[in-house]
Amino acid sequence: MKPSNRSGMMPLDLSRSSISKRSITIGLLGLGTVGSEVYNALIHNAKSLSEKTGFIYEIKKILVKNPEKSRAVNPKRSLLFTKIDEILEDPEIELIVEVMGGLDPAGAIIEKALCHGKSVVTANKGVMATHGERLLKLAEEHKADLFFEASVAGAIPILRPLQESMATDRILEVCGIVNGTTNFILTKMTQEGSSYETALKEAQRLGYAEPDPTFDVTGMDAAYKIAILAALAFGHFAKGDHVSREGITEITPTDLQHAKEMGYRVKLLAKATCDSEGLLLSVAPTWIPSHHPLYNVEGPYNAILVKGERLGDVMFYGQGAGGVPTSTAVVSDIVHASKNIVLGISGQSNQRMETDIKLKSPESFKTRYFFRLSVDDKPGTLAALAKNFADEDVSFAAVLQKENTVNVTDILFLTHDVREGAFRKALANAKKLPFVKSICSVFKVEP
Amino acid sequence: MKPSNRSGMMPLDLSRSSISKRSITIGLLGLGTVGSEVYNALIHNAKSLSEKTGFIYEIKKILVKNPEKSRAVNPKRSLLFTKIDEILEDPEIELIVEVMGGLDPAGAIIEKALCHGKSVVTANKGVMATHGERLLKLAEEHKADLFFEASVAGAIPILRPLQESMATDRILEVCGIVNGTTNFILTKMTQEGSSYETALKEAQRLGYAEPDPTFDVTGMDAAYKIAILAALAFGHFAKGDHVSREGITEITPTDLQHAKEMGYRVKLLAKATCDSEGLLLSVAPTWIPSHHPLYNVEGPYNAILVKGERLGDVMFYGQGAGGVPTSTAVVSDIVHASKNIVLGISGQSNQRMETDIKLKSPESFKTRYFFRLSVDDKPGTLAALAKNFADEDVSFAAVLQKENTVNVTDILFLTHDVREGAFRKALANAKKLPFVKSICSVFKVEP
Repeated sequence: MKPSNRSGMMPLDLSRSSISKRSITIGLLGLGTVGSEVYNALIHNAKSLSEKTGFIYEIKKILVKNPEKSRAVNPKRSLLFTKIDEILEDPEIELIVEVMGGLDPAGAIIEKALCHGKSVVTANKGVMATHGERLLKLAEEHKADLFFEASVAGAIPILRPLQESMATDRILEVCGIVNGTTNFILTKMTQEGSSYETALKEAQRLGYAEPDPTFDVTGMDAAYKIAILAALAFGHFAKGDHVSREGITEITPTDLQHAKEMGYRVKLLAKATCDSEGLLLSVAPTWIPSHHPLYNVEGPYNAILVKGERLGDVMFYGQGAGGVPTSTAVVSDIVHASKNIVLGISGQSNQRMETDIKLKSPESFKTRYFFRLSVDDKPGTLAALAKNFADEDVSFAAVLQKENTVNVTDILFLTHDVREGAFRKALANAKKLPFVKSICSVFKVEP
Repeated sequence: MKPSNRSGMMPLDLSRSSISKRSITIGLLGLGTVGSEVYNALIHNAKSLSEKTGFIYEIKKILVKNPEKSRAVNPKRSLLFTKIDEILEDPEIELIVEVMGGLDPAGAIIEKALCHGKSVVTANKGVMATHGERLLKLAEEHKADLFFEASVAGAIPILRPLQESMATDRILEVCGIVNGTTNFILTKMTQEGSSYETALKEAQRLGYAEPDPTFDVTGMDAAYKIAILAALAFGHFAKGDHVSREGITEITPTDLQHAKEMGYRVKLLAKATCDSEGLLLSVAPTWIPSHHPLYNVEGPYNAILVKGERLGDVMFYGQGAGGVPTSTAVVSDIVHASKNIVLGISGQSNQRMETDIKLKSPESFKTRYFFRLSVDDKPGTLAALAKNFADEDVSFAAVLQKENTVNVTDILFLTHDVREGAFRKALANAKKLPFVKSICSVFKVEP
């Protein structure tokens, strides 16, 4: 008795030789930077890929906005379609590869593809961090795979290891540098003492930042990614919008210099922790100490640190973005989904989501802080400040008052662990003190 | 029409609810450090593991040498067996977990288990780096899985990502720090200026080195591991014995100090490269520059750097050894193999091996070198040395002569890229020069 595969197109023989002959019919949605590289990998390297993976990959239809546009790759005109239904309703197409990007209409298209029982591979972090929970449920109902390795940290295989290899451990924390644009800017500012604006321009010139960098520099991109990582680590799909978030636009070279002097580097850290009280998600510029595995992650590189109860610290490091690395992650998901289609087991490896996990308020988050105040240089200032913070149980690990020049001086504080709520309250009180001119900067500090 | 699973024990329904009820019957071979932790994970954490993975894991029989011995865990006496055939010939046992260690009889037992059609999970790097190719063929013939994630870098999920997620790229190089004992010793020597002997004693006291450290400090353990990594990266299973190998026993604090002064750290680097001429495997103490991702891997930590043509540099970092991390990797393989058993697809995810790859001779290996010579402090010495090396096309990136005290001086050389064969010949010639007292040290240098 032999099992039949899901689409019923051919009998399934589990011997390797027969799998080798099986071809997988794909609908490719989008032919931009990533789409072109996926096309290249599947078509131009078809022989090598087929030898390595045992399948023949056939791209039957490609969705584009404008078939006449000149592109990096040139598929036959007859492959190009502008109406999505011509692809989704084609019964021969077994696998949809969504690399068009954007929330709309990509989200609705993925939903429709899954309802047609087609497996989906996507690189779309926005869609996953907004509709992920619902789409994974749909995939399960319709016995289809929904894979999204390429949506987080392009070159780094992190989602599948998190989901499979580390699933038997209890994950305590996932944190990382998941946005290459901001890490490039912060690295430049630290190394060259340049301003945010200058470093941003350099990043734009080199293609590491978009002409409109808002999505990256406000931490939104990192928020989407940490929501996806947390979903796989903790089984609860929060929305990107629910992540507590600070960007990097207010950071000055002075801040980075202070961090450097005290043995730290500033990174935009995305972090997810989960305990009995619930799940906490944040993105914030954070001081990373020199012994920390993430300290040396520089320039456009990404790294993700997973803390497991039994495994301890495990870190994954590599290029976070770019058409080529991202397309490689897409192709790896295509191979995985294809194998499941041929074996008739699609929909078996999607992440199970638990719904009884609560999102915690950032108020309860315990961490150390660095902050810098500009104050009048008068006797009693430091004593009054110390009392103000002690009143909220904020104690200091280090205090540094720099020599002043014009009757105004900067004082630098490094706190011990404190709850975010208490710290913010003490800071608000400090702001009201008559001798406090301004709160120049506030950073979280990793242990 | 529904497929039946391999053992024919129960009909297979692909819906998730029915998989959830399926129990997997295991034979556990060995109840030492790793075995006890595997037992703990499967028995004491049974409920949580079952909820997470959807299977019930039943350890039916355990192989031990002495059933009366007192152990960290205490299974029922009736579970303990001393004769392997009572386990391998039990038709109810579907999965063999080999954590007894050692080459014999573990290798023969794994072979017999596969021939019985039972899937095998092993942590045994010695067996895999010696009999891996043959055992994987056997597994394929008998439609059984042979998984060995725990054999390399305990806590780090590296084998499965290499085999699955990165398989669609062309891997150019795999290198890493894969032995925690030697990395701990070298870190101690660098940080504290202590001798090899002192650092080794400290490692033994803390449990990072065995009472007999030979296997680790001679680079044999790292050789086994790089052979396994190369098998998955390049599809050719070399034997551990074929790896070009140097240990760390001759390294002095002076060597480490010189490296530090020039901005490097010394690591025992295991490396596999593959090009059209063939596969090259080496383990050697190597200078790592400060910008290199492996530079900051300190103490007992491990890290593996994979260079892909499309993916670029991807690094995996974590704890390399210890019963708890290693057992977590074993349990992850158990879950994976169990899923395949229930789905009736065992033997489908084993690595395919190619046999037409040749092993290259280290002679052809191109790298930079650092070396230190002790010479008579006389006019013309440096000129004669420079000529000696230039005769074999060895040119220098840096030369440093330290001020002498007793008519004998040390000269430090850093070469440009050179073939190992030419370098070794020039070094042998230098040794014959009358003013050369001794070759104090030789290290490879990473770019």
